[in-house]
Amino acid sequence: MCIPFALSIVYKEQVATEAFLFTISIMVVFHVILLLFLRKEPIKIKAKDSYLFVTLTWVIATAFGALPLYLTKTLPTYSASYFEIMSGFTTTGATALQTIEDQLKSILFWRGMTNWLGGMGIVVLFVAILPFMGVRGANLVSAESVGPTKDKLTPHIQHTAMILWGIYVGFSVLEVLFLLLGKLSIFDAVTVTFGTMGAAGFSAKNSSIGGYNSAYVDWVVIVFMTIAGMNFALFFKAIQGRIDKVIKDAEFRVYISLIFVFSLVGSVSLLINRVYPNFFTAIRYSAFHVISVLTTTGFAICDYTSWPVFNQMLLFLLFFVGGCAGSAGGGMKVVRISTLMTLAKNTIKKRLHPRAVVQTRLGGDIIAQDTTLSIAGFIGVYLLTGFVGALIISTSGRSLETCLSAAFLFVGNIGIGLGDVGPAGNFSIFSPILQWVASFLMLVGRLELFTVYALFSKSFWKRG
Amino acid sequence: MCIPFALSIVYKEQVATEAFLFTISIMVVFHVILLLFLRKEPIKIKAKDSYLFVTLTWVIATAFGALPLYLTKTLPTYSASYFEIMSGFTTTGATALQTIEDQLKSILFWRGMTNWLGGMGIVVLFVAILPFMGVRGANLVSAESVGPTKDKLTPHIQHTAMILWGIYVGFSVLEVLFLLLGKLSIFDAVTVTFGTMGAAGFSAKNSSIGGYNSAYVDWVVIVFMTIAGMNFALFFKAIQGRIDKVIKDAEFRVYISLIFVFSLVGSVSLLINRVYPNFFTAIRYSAFHVISVLTTTGFAICDYTSWPVFNQMLLFLLFFVGGCAGSAGGGMKVVRISTLMTLAKNTIKKRLHPRAVVQTRLGGDIIAQDTTLSIAGFIGVYLLTGFVGALIISTSGRSLETCLSAAFLFVGNIGIGLGDVGPAGNFSIFSPILQWVASFLMLVGRLELFTVYALFSKSFWKRG
Ligand SMILES: [K+]
Ligand SMILES: [K+]
Repeated sequence: MCIPFALSIVYKEQVATEAFLFTISIMVVFHVILLLFLRKEPIKIKAKDSYLFVTLTWVIATAFGALPLYLTKTLPTYSASYFEIMSGFTTTGATALQTIEDQLKSILFWRGMTNWLGGMGIVVLFVAILPFMGVRGANLVSAESVGPTKDKLTPHIQHTAMILWGIYVGFSVLEVLFLLLGKLSIFDAVTVTFGTMGAAGFSAKNSSIGGYNSAYVDWVVIVFMTIAGMNFALFFKAIQGRIDKVIKDAEFRVYISLIFVFSLVGSVSLLINRVYPNFFTAIRYSAFHVISVLTTTGFAICDYTSWPVFNQMLLFLLFFVGGCAGSAGGGMKVVRISTLMTLAKNTIKKRLHPRAVVQTRLGGDIIAQDTTLSIAGFIGVYLLTGFVGALIISTSGRSLETCLSAAFLFVGNIGIGLGDVGPAGNFSIFSPILQWVASFLMLVGRLELFTVYALFSKSFWKRG
Repeated sequence: MCIPFALSIVYKEQVATEAFLFTISIMVVFHVILLLFLRKEPIKIKAKDSYLFVTLTWVIATAFGALPLYLTKTLPTYSASYFEIMSGFTTTGATALQTIEDQLKSILFWRGMTNWLGGMGIVVLFVAILPFMGVRGANLVSAESVGPTKDKLTPHIQHTAMILWGIYVGFSVLEVLFLLLGKLSIFDAVTVTFGTMGAAGFSAKNSSIGGYNSAYVDWVVIVFMTIAGMNFALFFKAIQGRIDKVIKDAEFRVYISLIFVFSLVGSVSLLINRVYPNFFTAIRYSAFHVISVLTTTGFAICDYTSWPVFNQMLLFLLFFVGGCAGSAGGGMKVVRISTLMTLAKNTIKKRLHPRAVVQTRLGGDIIAQDTTLSIAGFIGVYLLTGFVGALIISTSGRSLETCLSAAFLFVGNIGIGLGDVGPAGNFSIFSPILQWVASFLMLVGRLELFTVYALFSKSFWKRG
């Protein structure tokens, strides 16, 4: 928070300077109190405790992070500010701001930064930092690890976290440079990068990436969104020269195929319906939004809610996929959907040949029955969460597609939806209560459901 | 088809008389040809072959059944007629008729009768009849059996089929009597019963059951819809005096709970939003549509698309449940959704206590991992089918909620949806191509997906 604080001084935004100073002071006090409690002895964290710890981290970080927005009156209520920053830290990117460009620059920078911080997971950062505070957080990664990755990277969590962080920073610097080449200001290049690499979607323009009105910028963002939606363990392997492992990765293949097929089909529909004059423009608009939704980034370059319903339905289907496991993206994750599809295919086989032994395979690997079952369970809880969320949101009286897509854009951390919550909409239309519900849905989605839901189970609190 | 033929004479509907006569003649010829082929030797049907047989039965029965509608110009095209009768035999109850009351009565009777015939499954009838033709169809039931029933009724399929048929006829007679008490004409009482007991939803009124404008009729239909959505094996047990087994049945309990909770919550919302003046009216309208959608009957007593969005969302959620296994209802079935929910709950437990052995239980019974997996696979294929269907239907340019609910009302054999395909809408708005797609979706849904999809797999056609 020191960077936006410094920025507020540079930009001479006094209200923001005071707000950041106040927030930082409170955080320091809180930090000192925490240190007093934790310093005394190294705490061994059990798997169970890490759920509580991770959840609290997000809840508390958001509580502090929301203060500058509230204090500068960027948003009228604390609930809206909390919503905005939870949307930031969970990389959802849904905004409650009615206009963006006329806000304080340091606040917009802070807002974007929460995206970037959330992107790689503040918890992964904490894993590299916490040990210096005497907390051994070995189990944190399993609570935070995004999706079911097969090979564990290395047992040395801190080391791994640092490498991942390095890759993340590397790509971020690269994107900033590419965007600067596209004649964006440093402020714009950095905020766009925050939103891209976090698969998060906050931008400093009212009309998102469309505000830069540049095909070059669009393509740069397309490429880096695709990167942000990939499993970072693959980059780790690529660095070690194991490119073959990357190419053979089943999830990676499905991911790339989904992007190609949906983008292509979408652009053909856009051409047939004469929305765009030529293939090059159509594929740009189609690919941008397909990748934006699939990776759960939530950037936009036009208001696709005026597109043919077929194209909107294409995007809606992608609401139920999400990025790759181990990426910055949210959603159910490509690997889970692939597993479910393989399972479905096997069920047909099994019906035809009841005595045959059919195993769930993904790429070349056999997936254990237990894992398959827990993936199916995950998908069940995910859909139920979304549907119950949609039911609650429907009390707003908005259209069915608005409520449905809103619920799933929160749980999937996507950030843009259909109907009233499309690229042209914002979440100031929601009542404070619904903003709190939304914050909860975003958190539950970001922490892969079970981390949060476990806290609500009886057996969690039973044995200390 | 002889009954509507006779009716057409009684009602002096000459066009219909000729149409039925023509259709019956063709069917007799087809039947004789079939007999010539089948009589020669008893054929042993393998599980694999039964898939083809069952699917063909529906496809061919519909092909013939659609003729009277086409020949009498009740519907303008053969595709619309095929759609209508497929909707009848699959107990979907979606209609392509723009007006109903001014149609030929014998045609309306035939249309309703396809609902009733489809309801108990013409294949179950065929299981009782086919043996006399020299075909041993022991495996047919496993292809037709609706959902994963645990205890097989009795190994004597023909005997069982006759008992089930008896129960079905018994309830039908009972409903007719109750409706006659409500001062409905015999024609109306019978057609309403056709639609109710088949969980199918065709009616002889433009505004469905609402056309009778009678609270008494509504409540009679509510009770018999609930019965039609129950597992008929339970009635079988009840007859044998094993009432305790019925009450302890896990699916039955969830089914009844769903009805109570959704009806109650819905009626409270209707009261709060002042749609109806008192609780008694609100609960009638709420329960009617909750049960109509849950049992996949698809009757309506008002146009709920003008209800608060919250109530519409409640109904939309029920689109993803369906009746009980072994009922006349369609959808994913209560037992499958319950299993998925139990699985989800267990996944949380497992995360908290990684070493614990957690089994999927429903009621008191442990469900084998294999079964759980195949249920998860089924749900995956079901959702994928619906979503792909919605994508195809979205080429119609109708709203997202129209296309989504249309796809799932076909696959779930529900028959009414939201948006343009609500109670006030009809499917004449669909192009012929979409009507064929709809026919396919209805068939796939009715035969529980795999029966039809198996025909598209390579391994089906490999080993003769
Ligand atoms: K996002
Ligand atoms: K129906």
